[in-house]
Amino acid sequence: MTFRTAVMGAGSWGTVFGKLLRDAGGEVTVWGRRATVVESINERHENPDYLPGIELPAGLRATTDAAEALEGADFVALAVPAQTLRENLAAWVPLLPPESVLVSLMKGVELGTCRRMSEVIGEIADVPAERVAVFSGPNLAREIASRQPGAAVAACADESAAQRLQTAAMTPYFRVYTSTDVVGCELGGAVKNIVALCVGMAVGLGFGASTQAVLMTRGLAEITRLGAALGADEHTFAGLAGMGDLVGTCSSPLSRNRTFGENLGRGMTLDEVITVTKQTAEGVKSSGAVLELARKHNVEMPITEAVVSVLHGGVPIKDAAISLISRSPKPERYGV
Amino acid sequence: MTFRTAVMGAGSWGTVFGKLLRDAGGEVTVWGRRATVVESINERHENPDYLPGIELPAGLRATTDAAEALEGADFVALAVPAQTLRENLAAWVPLLPPESVLVSLMKGVELGTCRRMSEVIGEIADVPAERVAVFSGPNLAREIASRQPGAAVAACADESAAQRLQTAAMTPYFRVYTSTDVVGCELGGAVKNIVALCVGMAVGLGFGASTQAVLMTRGLAEITRLGAALGADEHTFAGLAGMGDLVGTCSSPLSRNRTFGENLGRGMTLDEVITVTKQTAEGVKSSGAVLELARKHNVEMPITEAVVSVLHGGVPIKDAAISLISRSPKPERYGV
Repeated sequence: MTFRTAVMGAGSWGTVFGKLLRDAGGEVTVWGRRATVVESINERHENPDYLPGIELPAGLRATTDAAEALEGADFVALAVPAQTLRENLAAWVPLLPPESVLVSLMKGVELGTCRRMSEVIGEIADVPAERVAVFSGPNLAREIASRQPGAAVAACADESAAQRLQTAAMTPYFRVYTSTDVVGCELGGAVKNIVALCVGMAVGLGFGASTQAVLMTRGLAEITRLGAALGADEHTFAGLAGMGDLVGTCSSPLSRNRTFGENLGRGMTLDEVITVTKQTAEGVKSSGAVLELARKHNVEMPITEAVVSVLHGGVPIKDAAISLISRSPKPERYGV
Repeated sequence: MTFRTAVMGAGSWGTVFGKLLRDAGGEVTVWGRRATVVESINERHENPDYLPGIELPAGLRATTDAAEALEGADFVALAVPAQTLRENLAAWVPLLPPESVLVSLMKGVELGTCRRMSEVIGEIADVPAERVAVFSGPNLAREIASRQPGAAVAACADESAAQRLQTAAMTPYFRVYTSTDVVGCELGGAVKNIVALCVGMAVGLGFGASTQAVLMTRGLAEITRLGAALGADEHTFAGLAGMGDLVGTCSSPLSRNRTFGENLGRGMTLDEVITVTKQTAEGVKSSGAVLELARKHNVEMPITEAVVSVLHGGVPIKDAAISLISRSPKPERYGV
């Protein structure tokens, strides 16, 4: 069977996800706000703003009309900025096909409410958990667009929906694994940027692969503790949406969050770093919300605390590093 | 209390482990085979063969006399090449203090027998599991020698022994976590090099961070399946001796195994790569033994299989890559 997918959002990952599903043989329409981007996708098969130089499949359609994109969709992939989801989705709710599965491609936590994207979707669209899925993994848009081998997890409480999404996105260059753990799959992506900030600081201070690997591993340990408190399956964090996405982000010199931390580690002031950073580093915004969530659930997140103390508490990086390393001796696994 | 430790082996990690325990306030004697290295450690506080330019603590003693090193030791850290353990340890057994805990610092599997290092120790020294420990983590010797922040796991079936080892190795720059899962802690280090070979091949073929992160994550998944079959605790693989060591090795351009794979990926023949590789790449030797172990326990290890097919079966890398990516669709977690 051929799946119909509406990708709501024509940013880099939304566009590449649409290309992936088209490469897998599906019918895909990308909704974008700007007519110039939509026109370019339809006529020149390129998204010049986000993916210059990448040739998109001729069959990948785009529209500025949400109703047209959503009509008859089996999957509605949500790919708008995390903080705009609530408003955007509210406008689309009357247009959602009644059996469609809403797939979150977004990585972030809603500021103010501390809600995960799937929670916002469930709340605004008023759909049961069986119709909310997450698609997540260590996917750099340009690399997947170039058909480099990649993989992701399709997670939904309804396993058969996860399997349909798996079928819709498997290609000769991309593997999809299924999971029923939506919370675990989306939490890794939402918190990884905080760890990437910390790894960046370590790089800026001149520390090598050993320190970085420790920060990634203990960073994943604290994300796992938070996940367990929120009802996620601990094992998910050892997978593509947890460890995979974390390692991909932390080891890429292109990561904005890592670069932000690196500049701080090299001795720039916070104001100087903000000035040289063109786009926002997601972890800078979300770190406070994540720490708030952790405190509400009595979860220890020492790396997140250290990052927040540097970014929002005026603590010098070296003092934060000392407080991290001089914590009391512990068993490797605790708090889960 | 002050711990006495004998470090049996004056290679780079043995020497740095001795320095670490000395920095933590212990009494440490390093046994080395070669008189020149021992003299240099005692008189010039340097191990010029393995750690040129690194200043060792004045209180770190060295000797060529195993009996002298072992006398009164609380911990006997074994840091000889994995394939020489059986023979070396047999000579030392009569000299082991009766209450001493034997700590494996070695990463590898015994060829021929497919035994893990702790199994060889238990067999040759004829000591109960309570006296066999493993110390493992993402530690590059030169970085820890330079006091860059690091961490490791001390694992022993006897939790109090693991805690004593934790105390003996905690310093202001190094954290130690405890675990009771010896099998899990040593398996990660023994198998990571096979994944590093595969990551190297991907790099050589021109693939970026997405592909590498997928290989590390799915590599850890297959190591975890093998571990579960051998009685390890699955959670250990998400820790410092599993994910940590794997990520540290796979992301370091200095890793011999990664470099070996990279040269293959760039198109060199196996013979050409062996010629340009000065020291042996551990994963090339151990991959066959690990696959044998996996088959004996009915564990699927597709990445290990792909590496073995390239290294020992004459399969072209691109064909191995295609067979990896075209496996049947799966749930993310299976076989554990």
